[in-house]
Amino acid sequence: MSEVAENERRILVAIDEGDESIYALSWCLKNLVFQNSKDTLILLYVKPPRAVFSSFDYPADFVITADVMANMDKHSQQVADRVIETATRLCNNIQNVEMKVGYGDPRDVICEMTQKLGADILVMGSHGYGVIKRTFLGSVSNHCAQNAKCSVLIVKRPK
Amino acid sequence: MSEVAENERRILVAIDEGDESIYALSWCLKNLVFQNSKDTLILLYVKPPRAVFSSFDYPADFVITADVMANMDKHSQQVADRVIETATRLCNNIQNVEMKVGYGDPRDVICEMTQKLGADILVMGSHGYGVIKRTFLGSVSNHCAQNAKCSVLIVKRPK
Repeated sequence: MSEVAENERRILVAIDEGDESIYALSWCLKNLVFQNSKDTLILLYVKPPRAVFSSFDYPADFVITADVMANMDKHSQQVADRVIETATRLCNNIQNVEMKVGYGDPRDVICEMTQKLGADILVMGSHGYGVIKRTFLGSVSNHCAQNAKCSVLIVKRPK
Repeated sequence: MSEVAENERRILVAIDEGDESIYALSWCLKNLVFQNSKDTLILLYVKPPRAVFSSFDYPADFVITADVMANMDKHSQQVADRVIETATRLCNNIQNVEMKVGYGDPRDVICEMTQKLGADILVMGSHGYGVIKRTFLGSVSNHCAQNAKCSVLIVKRPK
């Protein structure tokens, strides 16, 4: 393994609130990241813009006041905190871990970040961004598999 | 690495005549397959059906006689032999290597074989089956990323 361990690979894992992404991270830690190597694991959480986050989570006749928006932002932040906490806990044995938060359409942000962060490989769950948001956003993983410039690993949970 | 090395992962690599697939295999050998582990590397070459193989490789007014068909089959076999030889040579350090040849539309055959062969992960180049055939077949890797039941790694060559 010496040849591999000497690599300094930059492995970007896209995480979100879905179980698939946490499973993908675990799979990556077990199968791809070499412990005690110079690999850098970059965790990327992308906060979708508020419009995407809200429009399917609340009834259509729901009146969006400043209070509601503040609550939505708070909820969004809590979700992000929970995801980031779970992911970083899983990586506590890894020497080089970076945490990044992006904002915008996850499809675009993830593809852009692979280039900006010099990722050698992008790892993600097979769907991403939950069942409801997925309907709106389309499959994030499909988009990234086609558009990211680096290698892409789509981890699927066994049925 | 002991935890990982004890895995008995079945890694299926789809190979074809394109440079991308040989690059994908090399990447996989360097980054995913653990030497001296119980991993099994399965190389899968899929021969497209003759109709697909011929219709873009020869002019439209080309008369297909029995001789021509025999020549096409011979050429197809030579291509297959060359691909398989290159791929197996790359894997000469790997303990458990299996070579499989399938026949049919690569998109369907590859997805079916992941299940039939109990693959934990499918590795493939970002395109597959050459520029001309790709136009007809559509992107094999896109199809497999969406439809294979196991995890899928699409290896892209750096530009």
